[in-house]
Amino acid sequence: MSGHLAVVGLGPGDARYLTPEADAALAAAQSLYGYAPYLDRVPLRAGQSRHASDNREESARAAAALAHAAQGARVAVVSGGDPGIFAMAAAICEAIESGPESWRALDLTIVPGITAMLAVAARVGAPLGHDFCTLSLSDNLKPWELIEQRLDAAASAGFVIALYNPVSRARPWQFGAAIDRLRGHLPPSTPVIFGRSIARPDECVSVVALETADAAHADMATLVIVGSRETRVIARSGRSPLVYTPRAVAEVSA
Amino acid sequence: MSGHLAVVGLGPGDARYLTPEADAALAAAQSLYGYAPYLDRVPLRAGQSRHASDNREESARAAAALAHAAQGARVAVVSGGDPGIFAMAAAICEAIESGPESWRALDLTIVPGITAMLAVAARVGAPLGHDFCTLSLSDNLKPWELIEQRLDAAASAGFVIALYNPVSRARPWQFGAAIDRLRGHLPPSTPVIFGRSIARPDECVSVVALETADAAHADMATLVIVGSRETRVIARSGRSPLVYTPRAVAEVSA
Repeated sequence: MSGHLAVVGLGPGDARYLTPEADAALAAAQSLYGYAPYLDRVPLRAGQSRHASDNREESARAAAALAHAAQGARVAVVSGGDPGIFAMAAAICEAIESGPESWRALDLTIVPGITAMLAVAARVGAPLGHDFCTLSLSDNLKPWELIEQRLDAAASAGFVIALYNPVSRARPWQFGAAIDRLRGHLPPSTPVIFGRSIARPDECVSVVALETADAAHADMATLVIVGSRETRVIARSGRSPLVYTPRAVAEVSA
Repeated sequence: MSGHLAVVGLGPGDARYLTPEADAALAAAQSLYGYAPYLDRVPLRAGQSRHASDNREESARAAAALAHAAQGARVAVVSGGDPGIFAMAAAICEAIESGPESWRALDLTIVPGITAMLAVAARVGAPLGHDFCTLSLSDNLKPWELIEQRLDAAASAGFVIALYNPVSRARPWQFGAAIDRLRGHLPPSTPVIFGRSIARPDECVSVVALETADAAHADMATLVIVGSRETRVIARSGRSPLVYTPRAVAEVSA
């Protein structure tokens, strides 16, 4: 009786983006763990217990879910988007590495989901159509100096940049500082995409130029994509513009 | 009568990873365009026409699908994985930008899917659990020198690296050269993950150390993830090891 733990990606906030594999994993669970707004997206099923916790309690949630599964239960931990991208799968692995031997014996399944950058990119065209970097702007778990180094490396090497966790109440200045830093590498007209609540009633997507981007466009739930020098905007009469990064790069920049 | 074009991500090769949104877009189409092996994954529906083309004919396929939609038809172009990641969405945008005005008037929808790096990462743990770069190794559309610059920038800044298109018949040496270059930045024990055919009968996932990684592990359909200095391997008795990148980085490396 080794127990089973599934770490399940819900995708963006609508059942149309939940894969059948994720739905089956949720249906098979005896107990569900997760951040309350994510649990609220999962249909209620008779006999399932629910254990909601705060967004900042990932390590405690991981340990509680693993301990429960190690008792022989079938447990699912839910993540918005994909559990492997700045979400619960890494927290579960960290807990397994430092936890009791019985946690390593668990049958662990990770069910991928549509992560925010894919959902936002699809709404505007193909901004991630060429090489890109994916970076969390949160300096809760890494030094701000490292984030600056990575922004510099990514922008100067010509990567498009997808930014998760741009802003929070405890981190009010970091996004503005990141945008300022990127202005040192990229032309003022570089497209910047802000997307939040994709596929939900309050969905909001906007495209601005780097010179006018500011922190007022972003909150905790916003995903930001900053284009490269190659990223292009196609105006369309009566429709929102398309933003894409071409597949071809003709020359190495100086 | 402006026509409609959907660019649809099929995810990895199994219907369990096809979202309801993608399934609905496929069902609503009058005509389907795509690389033949991707079209073969779509259930046959009465009255739909199919237009299969070769993998290397992305631009011609994009133009044909757009021209067909501009006649007022409901057309879907299928992509494996996510259409926005080294796939058809960028080819469609390129064609729209250089094509007739009527193509800009089309109702264009891009339906995201589970891209290969998410599917492969989920099979082994959470290797993409921290900052990462996503890079195509194909030098068909960009100079090899630029790929080298980006590998250097990504590895030296501590990003995990996901590599698409590592090898093809026409590009036999590039993957070996990329691995050699990364050995100059990363410890010999750095985990390298090779994944192909996720969720298909011939699924194959392996984890090796950077010092022993070689081109024999990869083919055209392989997705490769090269860890950072932070990426860890957890041995499990009787189970395959977990590979993950912790959420926290304590210090900036020299």
